Amino acid sequence: MRTSARDVEELWAGGHPVYIGAHVLPMLQRWLEFEAPPTQCFVLGDSNTLRHCLPELLAFVPHLQHAEPIEVPAGESSKSIDVAGAIWGHLSDREAERGALLVNLGGGVVSDLGGFVAGTYKRGIRSVNVPTTLMGMVDAAIGGKTGIDAAGIKNLVGLFRDPKGVYVHVPFLRTLGKRELLNGVAEMIKHGLVRDADHYRAVREAPLHDLAALAPLVHRSAAIKSAVVNEDPLEGGVRRVLNFGHTIGHALEAHSWESQQLGLLHGEAVAIGMICEAWLSWRQGLLSREAYDLVQGHLQSLYKPYSFTADDHHRLIALMRNDKKNADGALRFTLLREIGQAMVDVPVTPAQVGEALDHYRLLARDARRHHP
Amino acid sequence: MRTSARDVEELWAGGHPVYIGAHVLPMLQRWLEFEAPPTQCFVLGDSNTLRHCLPELLAFVPHLQHAEPIEVPAGESSKSIDVAGAIWGHLSDREAERGALLVNLGGGVVSDLGGFVAGTYKRGIRSVNVPTTLMGMVDAAIGGKTGIDAAGIKNLVGLFRDPKGVYVHVPFLRTLGKRELLNGVAEMIKHGLVRDADHYRAVREAPLHDLAALAPLVHRSAAIKSAVVNEDPLEGGVRRVLNFGHTIGHALEAHSWESQQLGLLHGEAVAIGMICEAWLSWRQGLLSREAYDLVQGHLQSLYKPYSFTADDHHRLIALMRNDKKNADGALRFTLLREIGQAMVDVPVTPAQVGEALDHYRLLARDARRHHP
Repeated sequence: MRTSARDVEELWAGGHPVYIGAHVLPMLQRWLEFEAPPTQCFVLGDSNTLRHCLPELLAFVPHLQHAEPIEVPAGESSKSIDVAGAIWGHLSDREAERGALLVNLGGGVVSDLGGFVAGTYKRGIRSVNVPTTLMGMVDAAIGGKTGIDAAGIKNLVGLFRDPKGVYVHVPFLRTLGKRELLNGVAEMIKHGLVRDADHYRAVREAPLHDLAALAPLVHRSAAIKSAVVNEDPLEGGVRRVLNFGHTIGHALEAHSWESQQLGLLHGEAVAIGMICEAWLSWRQGLLSREAYDLVQGHLQSLYKPYSFTADDHHRLIALMRNDKKNADGALRFTLLREIGQAMVDVPVTPAQVGEALDHYRLLARDARRHHP
Repeated sequence: MRTSARDVEELWAGGHPVYIGAHVLPMLQRWLEFEAPPTQCFVLGDSNTLRHCLPELLAFVPHLQHAEPIEVPAGESSKSIDVAGAIWGHLSDREAERGALLVNLGGGVVSDLGGFVAGTYKRGIRSVNVPTTLMGMVDAAIGGKTGIDAAGIKNLVGLFRDPKGVYVHVPFLRTLGKRELLNGVAEMIKHGLVRDADHYRAVREAPLHDLAALAPLVHRSAAIKSAVVNEDPLEGGVRRVLNFGHTIGHALEAHSWESQQLGLLHGEAVAIGMICEAWLSWRQGLLSREAYDLVQGHLQSLYKPYSFTADDHHRLIALMRNDKKNADGALRFTLLREIGQAMVDVPVTPAQVGEALDHYRLLARDARRHHP
């Protein structure tokens, strides 16, 4: 980790650099001047980011003033084969060549989708991520995982493929509402829980509405994510610590799309997943009851309860079975040993998962009773 | 290149081995026994290869007897996003995990499609190619290029991604008709023209209906393809010699799908592309007239003429513009300096391409007059 005179932190994540701070966009301008013909630059964004972030991007990066914006609808539904197909066709209509560059300006949906499209258009063009959400800045934009959803499974289709660079312009956080901020905070909490007890405490105690207080925590979370990716770029082992909360979280997220409820955001689903998986950690004798109670109370104070019934357990467990993290047909979880330390590949039976879901439903019922 | 006691030749192509001969399938059996759980093996094929080649594969490779066959329609139309989507969904329904293996049993369509699907399912599972066509054995299955067609553009979407191995079981050539054999011969001719004058002569003089005479030429062509891929796996430079005949060939192939005519096979289109591009080589002062006449006469004796009009030139040139081989918006061709030697990235104007197409139309008209 290096900090330059202009207060830009430089990290390395597996196969790509991450620049973070309030002055990273001029660095993107300089890189583009040397690397990319302006007529072959495209900026992928959604209706929010093209309206609220693109003007600021263009002010700092004039090289992109002749780039063509490509807009996709905001939200997870854009991570689809159909939307990917439309972007491939659009690039082809514009005669984009192998030297073309795609700038992904948005949150995790945009960088997952754009990274996949860039990685497969004409067998691969270059891409750069400019995350605009907290989730993007601390997690999704970093580490070269790309993906789209198919057959109702999140990230069923995707690639490990590094962007040329990730430019984290922290002031974009100003454009976010509270729900979007909390969405990213869930991953920051996870980073603390699996790797860094001090970071967990700092995130728990920070005034989250205060961007000045949040900024150094964004740096720290991006650094934790980058460090884990460096140790294991292709998720052969240790990178799976980042899956804490995600096995149950992904299933709940997919379940929320299938059911009548409004869809959960990724971070909201992961927060509930972390409650369940911290409980499993305690039940397996790994985590102390005190630590579990602390984590559960913290997460429940930030995230609204999610409703499902015992009848949904079967479907939720089926969704977990199709999660990429399984091997040999068993359910394998990343669990906590203590706050700040995780253990990967812990086998868990479907019955134990059912107990965790039962436990969460009781908590959620109590929470609704107290805050109807 | 090594030849084992059992007459299997081992090559290396960029990032994967190629085994070729009449005894390669037992090697696949041994590899699978160590590497792949039988319940997570899938065999992708089309209606022809699953009927005519799968029984022979299973006889030599009993490990695959419990593998699940996945059938796609025969022909280029299967290289589509829709078919890829169906296979992703099928693998997901069968709970295929990251340790799963896809065996691509077929020609170029199957290995291009299967390689792409395997490279993207859950961010990548392993694949093995068992080519059943001459085109697959000498070209498509080797070198890690995968792709599907989209927006009417051949291979618009794809990856560079190595299979774990390519097993060229030459006896599968028995299952092919004359048109399928000639389809692959076009690439063998190309290998000779761009790299090896002796090989070109041998292919020109060989009795193509005699599989015993063809077999050593298959070895030689696979070796040329592998050697070029070794020099330049990602097609940054020298690998583009293999594009000879393909800039005009791909455009003709796509044009034949759009028009009322029956679609050209890839090799048929490349054969015509080679006539046009050899003519351009002569016009640019690179190739002698004698060499051009020899090549043109040879190709015209093997492949039927293709009909189009001067009105089609505009569309054909537009299709070439969207070819992956262009840079800076110019049309760049691989041309011949002499038989056995090629030059990449030669700029050619649309007017010159138009002249080449005019020239070919005259040749085709004469050919139809003599053999109506």
